[in-house]
Amino acid sequence: MRLGIVGGGQLGRMLAQAGAPLDIRFTFLDPSEAPCASAHGEHLRADWQDETALSRLAEQCDAITFEFENVPTAAVERLAEHRPAFPPAQALATARDRWVEKSLFRELGIAVPPIARIDDQADLDAAVAEIGLPAVVKTRTMGYDGKGQKVLREAADVAGTFAELGEMPLILEGFIDFDHEISAIAVRGRDGEIRHWPVARNEHRQGILHRSEPQPGHPLQRQAEQAIARVMEKLDYVGTLAFEFFVTGEGLLANEIAPRVHNSGHWSIEGAATSQFENHVRAVAGLPLGDTTRLVPCAMLNVIGAFPDRDAVLALPGTRWHDYGKAPRPGRKIGHITVLAVDDRTLAERVAAVDALLVNDLG
Amino acid sequence: MRLGIVGGGQLGRMLAQAGAPLDIRFTFLDPSEAPCASAHGEHLRADWQDETALSRLAEQCDAITFEFENVPTAAVERLAEHRPAFPPAQALATARDRWVEKSLFRELGIAVPPIARIDDQADLDAAVAEIGLPAVVKTRTMGYDGKGQKVLREAADVAGTFAELGEMPLILEGFIDFDHEISAIAVRGRDGEIRHWPVARNEHRQGILHRSEPQPGHPLQRQAEQAIARVMEKLDYVGTLAFEFFVTGEGLLANEIAPRVHNSGHWSIEGAATSQFENHVRAVAGLPLGDTTRLVPCAMLNVIGAFPDRDAVLALPGTRWHDYGKAPRPGRKIGHITVLAVDDRTLAERVAAVDALLVNDLG
Repeated sequence: MRLGIVGGGQLGRMLAQAGAPLDIRFTFLDPSEAPCASAHGEHLRADWQDETALSRLAEQCDAITFEFENVPTAAVERLAEHRPAFPPAQALATARDRWVEKSLFRELGIAVPPIARIDDQADLDAAVAEIGLPAVVKTRTMGYDGKGQKVLREAADVAGTFAELGEMPLILEGFIDFDHEISAIAVRGRDGEIRHWPVARNEHRQGILHRSEPQPGHPLQRQAEQAIARVMEKLDYVGTLAFEFFVTGEGLLANEIAPRVHNSGHWSIEGAATSQFENHVRAVAGLPLGDTTRLVPCAMLNVIGAFPDRDAVLALPGTRWHDYGKAPRPGRKIGHITVLAVDDRTLAERVAAVDALLVNDLG
Repeated sequence: MRLGIVGGGQLGRMLAQAGAPLDIRFTFLDPSEAPCASAHGEHLRADWQDETALSRLAEQCDAITFEFENVPTAAVERLAEHRPAFPPAQALATARDRWVEKSLFRELGIAVPPIARIDDQADLDAAVAEIGLPAVVKTRTMGYDGKGQKVLREAADVAGTFAELGEMPLILEGFIDFDHEISAIAVRGRDGEIRHWPVARNEHRQGILHRSEPQPGHPLQRQAEQAIARVMEKLDYVGTLAFEFFVTGEGLLANEIAPRVHNSGHWSIEGAATSQFENHVRAVAGLPLGDTTRLVPCAMLNVIGAFPDRDAVLALPGTRWHDYGKAPRPGRKIGHITVLAVDDRTLAERVAAVDALLVNDLG
């Protein structure tokens, strides 16, 4: 079996690594010269809007999936005419627009922060008057890792913001006083079966994920599962989906979804009976879903912008090194380290030891 | 970094899978058209005695290793002149001759069954008179999976045996009344550091490994570690080495070593903090060795000759499917299944469920 992946970054690379023991082969559609996934499969060099390339991908592969959400709906629909292509176009379209996404959450009864749709400066002024400050204004599309957003703390921050963010459609979100952020990750098969990994607690630095640690028995696991299941069913989703939430005194508030494998689920490669990558491959390929139990205490730390001393990390007990084969550049995710231990106390010590070696350059 | 592997079978394939997250690339030297490892690296199609091909492998790669022991000593020594090549030629030479191997064990004070060197029928008759029956006669070289051997139960079995086995150098071994077989697997780094995985209990069918299960806390772990360390130090070994023992009322009796990653260590891919494959890659590449702790109860079952219903296996909890990408043929190892569980009782139930689905064809 051969799977086609639109995109050739580290998520595609780790999907291929997960598919290798299943003897599944991969083709990556990516416009760059040597995307990091190309070390693990065929590389079709073309833009994701190139109709000829999309047709070739469909011809070569038994099923198609996506490494990111910014694929034009028409392209996804064209692929889906020829081959099973998951997740469906409507899921990608929903996730790439913060307004559409949060409106769906509200429609499904999933609690969200106060929000307003902003199409000009007057909308922004009115929304700030209603929601109050502080608040966060974000571009509706194309934002990631804290890019394309601005925190509004006082009235003076508001004036001129619409022009400053490029006169693009925006969303204003009331500032949430949250305790921490978690991500729920689940996978849905072609037959509609859903399986949930334990939620992970996330820690960010400068808006970029720094660390994720699965939390079996988290008191809000059930609430997160209900929310993710509602979204998956509504979108007729197939594959792995991540859902980020703020944990507040009143329970979860929905932040955003990612219609794909997600950085906060990388711990599952070693830490779960079946990883988010393998289960995504299984779902897209139409295979039965695997067990999502966390096997041992573990955590994941991102390597961003610069590598720590590799040999020093490898020499620590319970570390697993993931080098994505990408050139280091400030702010760029170039790898991650999984830390494993037989108990929570040892895990905390090991995570601290790895963290002390990191030399991340967040840019 | 690029590693060269002499041989392109499933062991090479799994070495490449283990090296992928470390961003290590692979080149396989193998005479067949499409060896199964070639899905995960460059394939240099040539015989392992082809001097030009060996030179090209050395030119392309930073270090070299071997997937099996039947590589001519001269070829290994030629490679080692140009690049780090591990394990050393003397280790391969020792392991491929049962007489040399067992003589080394005796020299190192490691208990072995009664043995005799056989170069003609008269040697065999004399040895049987001394060691007694039943006994097993084996070719000194090229035997594996129970091939190239004959059990001698009564006097009538002895006559003509030397001719029957092709007039090759043989070894006679007294029949051992053992409780079970274990394999000890360890890895030694370029700096001489040795790490041991827990010994695995092995079950064979028709002389072919059927199942291996790691046994942390096995009462003979320490004795096995001492034996393997003596052999590794004597041979100035670098890489993963497996050592099979018979467990008897008087402790361990040495059976044989394999100077490479071994079928009885496949459980370590998911079940250990660092697998036998990753640690072999680390050792050969000169990286620090990883933690060999068993993380969770687990076992490995071989898939031989024919695949069971894949989807039925994948649907069972805690199973991990390894398809080597080889065409099924009776007696051929074409995959394995790792079974994981959070406790021993659940593991036993899951192993029984997987075992019931197997349709192995041992030939």
